[in-house]
Amino acid sequence: MARAFVLIIWCLCFSISRCHIPNNYYDSAESVAPVAVLPGNVTKLTRSESQERLRAVRVVLASRAVDAYIVPTADAHNSQYIAPSDARREWVSGLRGSSGTSVVTATRALVWTDARYFTQFEVEVDGSLWELMRQGTDPSIQNWLVANMPPNSVVAVDPTTYTRNSWNTLQAALTRANIKLEAISENLIDLARVSIGDDPPSRPNNPLIPLTVNFTGRPSSDKISQLLQQMNSRGASALVLTALDDIAYTLNLRGTDIPFNPVFFAYLVIRTDLVAPNNIILFWGNGVLSSDISQHLASENTQLQARPYAEIFTYLGTLASEVSGRSIWLSDDASHAVYSAVESASNVNIQSSVSPVALMKVIKNEVELQGFRNAHVKDGVAVVRALYWLHRQLDAGAEVTEVGLVNKLAEYRSEETDSMGPSFSTIAGAGENGAIIHYSPLSEGPQRVITKDDMVLVDSGGQYKDGTTDITRTRHMNSSPTPEQRRAFTRVMKGQIALGTAVLPAGILGHTIEVLARKALWDIGLNYGHGTGHGVGHYLNVHEAPAWILSAVSVDDPGIRPNMIYSNEPGYYEVGEYGIRHEDLVQTIEMNSSADHVLADGIIGDFDGRGAVAFYTISLAPHQTACLDVNLLTDLEIKYLNNYHARVLTTLGPILEQRGYNDVLEWLTDECAPITRSSAPAKVVTPLVLISVFVAWLG
Amino acid sequence: MARAFVLIIWCLCFSISRCHIPNNYYDSAESVAPVAVLPGNVTKLTRSESQERLRAVRVVLASRAVDAYIVPTADAHNSQYIAPSDARREWVSGLRGSSGTSVVTATRALVWTDARYFTQFEVEVDGSLWELMRQGTDPSIQNWLVANMPPNSVVAVDPTTYTRNSWNTLQAALTRANIKLEAISENLIDLARVSIGDDPPSRPNNPLIPLTVNFTGRPSSDKISQLLQQMNSRGASALVLTALDDIAYTLNLRGTDIPFNPVFFAYLVIRTDLVAPNNIILFWGNGVLSSDISQHLASENTQLQARPYAEIFTYLGTLASEVSGRSIWLSDDASHAVYSAVESASNVNIQSSVSPVALMKVIKNEVELQGFRNAHVKDGVAVVRALYWLHRQLDAGAEVTEVGLVNKLAEYRSEETDSMGPSFSTIAGAGENGAIIHYSPLSEGPQRVITKDDMVLVDSGGQYKDGTTDITRTRHMNSSPTPEQRRAFTRVMKGQIALGTAVLPAGILGHTIEVLARKALWDIGLNYGHGTGHGVGHYLNVHEAPAWILSAVSVDDPGIRPNMIYSNEPGYYEVGEYGIRHEDLVQTIEMNSSADHVLADGIIGDFDGRGAVAFYTISLAPHQTACLDVNLLTDLEIKYLNNYHARVLTTLGPILEQRGYNDVLEWLTDECAPITRSSAPAKVVTPLVLISVFVAWLG
Repeated sequence: MARAFVLIIWCLCFSISRCHIPNNYYDSAESVAPVAVLPGNVTKLTRSESQERLRAVRVVLASRAVDAYIVPTADAHNSQYIAPSDARREWVSGLRGSSGTSVVTATRALVWTDARYFTQFEVEVDGSLWELMRQGTDPSIQNWLVANMPPNSVVAVDPTTYTRNSWNTLQAALTRANIKLEAISENLIDLARVSIGDDPPSRPNNPLIPLTVNFTGRPSSDKISQLLQQMNSRGASALVLTALDDIAYTLNLRGTDIPFNPVFFAYLVIRTDLVAPNNIILFWGNGVLSSDISQHLASENTQLQARPYAEIFTYLGTLASEVSGRSIWLSDDASHAVYSAVESASNVNIQSSVSPVALMKVIKNEVELQGFRNAHVKDGVAVVRALYWLHRQLDAGAEVTEVGLVNKLAEYRSEETDSMGPSFSTIAGAGENGAIIHYSPLSEGPQRVITKDDMVLVDSGGQYKDGTTDITRTRHMNSSPTPEQRRAFTRVMKGQIALGTAVLPAGILGHTIEVLARKALWDIGLNYGHGTGHGVGHYLNVHEAPAWILSAVSVDDPGIRPNMIYSNEPGYYEVGEYGIRHEDLVQTIEMNSSADHVLADGIIGDFDGRGAVAFYTISLAPHQTACLDVNLLTDLEIKYLNNYHARVLTTLGPILEQRGYNDVLEWLTDECAPITRSSAPAKVVTPLVLISVFVAWLG
Repeated sequence: MARAFVLIIWCLCFSISRCHIPNNYYDSAESVAPVAVLPGNVTKLTRSESQERLRAVRVVLASRAVDAYIVPTADAHNSQYIAPSDARREWVSGLRGSSGTSVVTATRALVWTDARYFTQFEVEVDGSLWELMRQGTDPSIQNWLVANMPPNSVVAVDPTTYTRNSWNTLQAALTRANIKLEAISENLIDLARVSIGDDPPSRPNNPLIPLTVNFTGRPSSDKISQLLQQMNSRGASALVLTALDDIAYTLNLRGTDIPFNPVFFAYLVIRTDLVAPNNIILFWGNGVLSSDISQHLASENTQLQARPYAEIFTYLGTLASEVSGRSIWLSDDASHAVYSAVESASNVNIQSSVSPVALMKVIKNEVELQGFRNAHVKDGVAVVRALYWLHRQLDAGAEVTEVGLVNKLAEYRSEETDSMGPSFSTIAGAGENGAIIHYSPLSEGPQRVITKDDMVLVDSGGQYKDGTTDITRTRHMNSSPTPEQRRAFTRVMKGQIALGTAVLPAGILGHTIEVLARKALWDIGLNYGHGTGHGVGHYLNVHEAPAWILSAVSVDDPGIRPNMIYSNEPGYYEVGEYGIRHEDLVQTIEMNSSADHVLADGIIGDFDGRGAVAFYTISLAPHQTACLDVNLLTDLEIKYLNNYHARVLTTLGPILEQRGYNDVLEWLTDECAPITRSSAPAKVVTPLVLISVFVAWLG
């Protein structure tokens, strides 16, 4: 089992580092990882359930003369996490999890997925009906189809579930092999579900949440003006926004349509060739906004037209003929369906690029930055209370399970102002569970009790109206790690500090600096099998593209500039034994000799006028210094940790005191005590002095 | 002037770090840099010469109904350095230098080039006739053409001077603007030259040099068998090799057709659908090989057909119809002309990828590796002699110029066995000249005398039958650098050691690790404006693609594996004052706890079975430790330097002694003396002990 996991981690390492340019950059987000599988029903499909589902799908395929049907894990908006209504791959195969693609033919059924889910496949999927295809080692979907589908066969996909880029790549390969790739707008899995009376869940359409300017810092009309300006300078008559977080950001609205991601299903079209209110069209729900939402938009001087979500493709077809001869601006990750609808009129010019809203929201304004800092103070209080609770429970001999810790974190976060729930499914892994990247304890089934010998890795986060958090702390339950654990804990910390204290030329790309977080591990031949940093949305998606710190390059990487939020999260995983990860969120700041930064004193240059940026840690919770080998740390690393812990204490201390959490405060004070390296001079000088004095006294 | 240079360096930094995927990866090689401009005639073209040339070109353009003609710095083989016969951009514009593209229209004449040549443009090019376009800041050639050429105009290029990829990109952009891109196989600059009686130099066709298996380690028939095998498994009937170093490597032949690059103009076609000798066709010269070459090939069991170089395109057209329905394998950097010739028959399937020979030769065999080490011992002797000579001359008050140093290095190298000349044009920059990246002192014109206050940067290399060298040493002429120089010298050294001692997962890509060489400079806000490492050919091109260590990603990067040769060359350039670069060549080795490496003792893992690689420095010459701030170095860095210098001394010492170079040996012994950090304990303990003893004695 351990050897299988070793192979898994190896494959993941290998597949990540060979990944030059992620077609779907969310694949890279997966590799940044620690957002877990959604907890759900543990029960595996029975064989007859599996067979029934496959049979139903095959009937539909036959009725449409489709020889192979591709079922990605995707919604129509290229969302990283999907709603149950879009969980078709899960329904047909039984494999839960945030990533994977199924292919069903008349006689074969296959699931492509990455190393995180190989073992889960064995558990959840009926191996007599389904075949596992390992991404990175087995042939790709494309190559498998080319090798196994005869000439003139028809492969079909729901065109809303494929980006235009992915479609083109697949189509080119299939065409070379004389295989036809067909877009069928009715989702064939949904049809199959209906045919056996297991109707698919409806698309969520929960009430919209207005987010006022004291949280957003910028009215939606202002954001839209900037977009209109950009459209005019590019000569674009229309801009079609498809990413759900882009739409939420633009309109200063939030939702709850996807678990943990405060977004709502919608499309947004902006036109330069029409005037308000017809120049902004929101496709949402049934097209009727509630009065509080209309008032919110009006208060921000935004007039728009609301239409039913279902009308988007018809509208896009009309749009194409209306702007014939002019330009429509689409995001480069919009679906093939959107591109096709817009191309329905000849003579329409499509501009395809990274979404302008993606680039806009990756730089936070002052209100958002202050909001992030506020949210992290609140989150720090919750996390510190939970860590204290964990230790106290164990010291008192009470039983604590992983799920118990998950619930306690959620409870404490919910007690903070403007808390809007978790930002992802908490990862709480004790002992060997900590080594499973993307592990999420399930609330049903046998529970893992945390023991005093365990290293516990807990990665959790919250949504607040003023910001989004994501933090990982690793703690040994009786502060006595093994020598191997201490070594790994320390080297991961050295890596996190190296990246966290780096001085960087402004605009540097994420892929150039990731190694700083790995070097301390690499020096002894160890590594971790996920990425190191992701952008974070402001009360939005916890993984926010296109800002990444990975070894793979992101073609839309905006470069590291001031006022961005990243995660900094190296780790080390000893399969079958323990996992370690140290994660903070950091804000990028202008770096110069007066910055609040351990290296500020030594700054000589500003990269010849280019400017320097650095990271400022905004997460507030102690790292367990008792697990460090302090003699392995440099003076700078010790100074960073001591400064950081002092800041944690001075920031959170007064709040804990004011709320009467005195035990927590006492614990935190201990945890934040400065560390020192035992110094050789003291060790040598003191005895020498004593001896000398003694000799002198004798004489 | 200084501010201009600051801007230049900034632009270069910026353009390098924004460069995601070099279309022509040799552009990135330029940015690795230190291979200088070919020395040449300093005289600038007179205005009337310039006018005459432009007029002649415009007459030819008009006669062909061409509205704009693009003149790259390129030959038909995508060579990084070109022969005079291909120096068309230089002829028409007057701008010498290894990089830059001209565009000539009826009324405009422009040169696009990078920061290295901005100042040179002012000096060499008539600014009343020509406009300078700064790569990275001014519009690209493509964008300029789209903005300035009216619809239906014709842009032409010699299709041998554009790779297919570059052609496609340009064509797509021009087509969108209704501009036609035309391939004209006669080079219009060459025609213009003939029209004014200034015939272009003929293409070099110098005698071929056989390289026997005691140098190459592998007969050509063996290499060809491997290629045939690869062709068969890909179903390719023909493989067309166009890169000159690939052809030289495959046939174990060398040449002298391009200065410093031991290659010969040729094409090589290999067929699986024919039998020897008709399955290997070499297009070279007049198609008649000398008997010593035929014998050499025969001795390696290689039978081939030789045809005239000029027949290649006719042949490719025939080839296309002969293999109709099957596959022709082309390198992804072959010219548009080659692709067009092969596409002349319909129904031919083209496989385009990185050249299989490029991937083959980037991994050196044992004989080549031993050859590299031998060559570096010889080269070390030459370099050490030259550095000693330089110091001794100055100490004796003799006048030494930069060119004098260049010549002395060439002289000493030529005295070594199997020396085949320099591997590039030596860079010897004293004082402010050291800050000019790609500076090469000219033998005509005013000479820069080296003074005792100068920091001197000397980057040079040699071709030997057993290997290629490339080494940079920076020395202060009286061992007393300023504090700023010492700080920069030390931080560049820290960076070079960080990269040079790195432990890496096997297969890691170059772009992920470059920051290791920069961090010590970045920490204080300094940087250098070129790349850090390039692959090196075995008695071949000193810059050997596709192995690079740059911030830009190379799509064909084979990954860092054992038995490769890279350079490791960070630097720092204070414009107007001094330049520092520390460059060694390194061999990649398998890394484990028994490797000859400063970190071997601490190795715990092997990246979960993936394997670890590290670098082993093969260049042998002392770094000037007198310029180091030893207190800024870590224990590991000091240990690395002391080990390295001990190895330099034990390797070169006996040879110097045996040859009677006793003064050099004495100098080298001093230079290789170990360094220590003044230790605090000693500083504190010793006085304390003395005081205590004194007190005791008093008592």
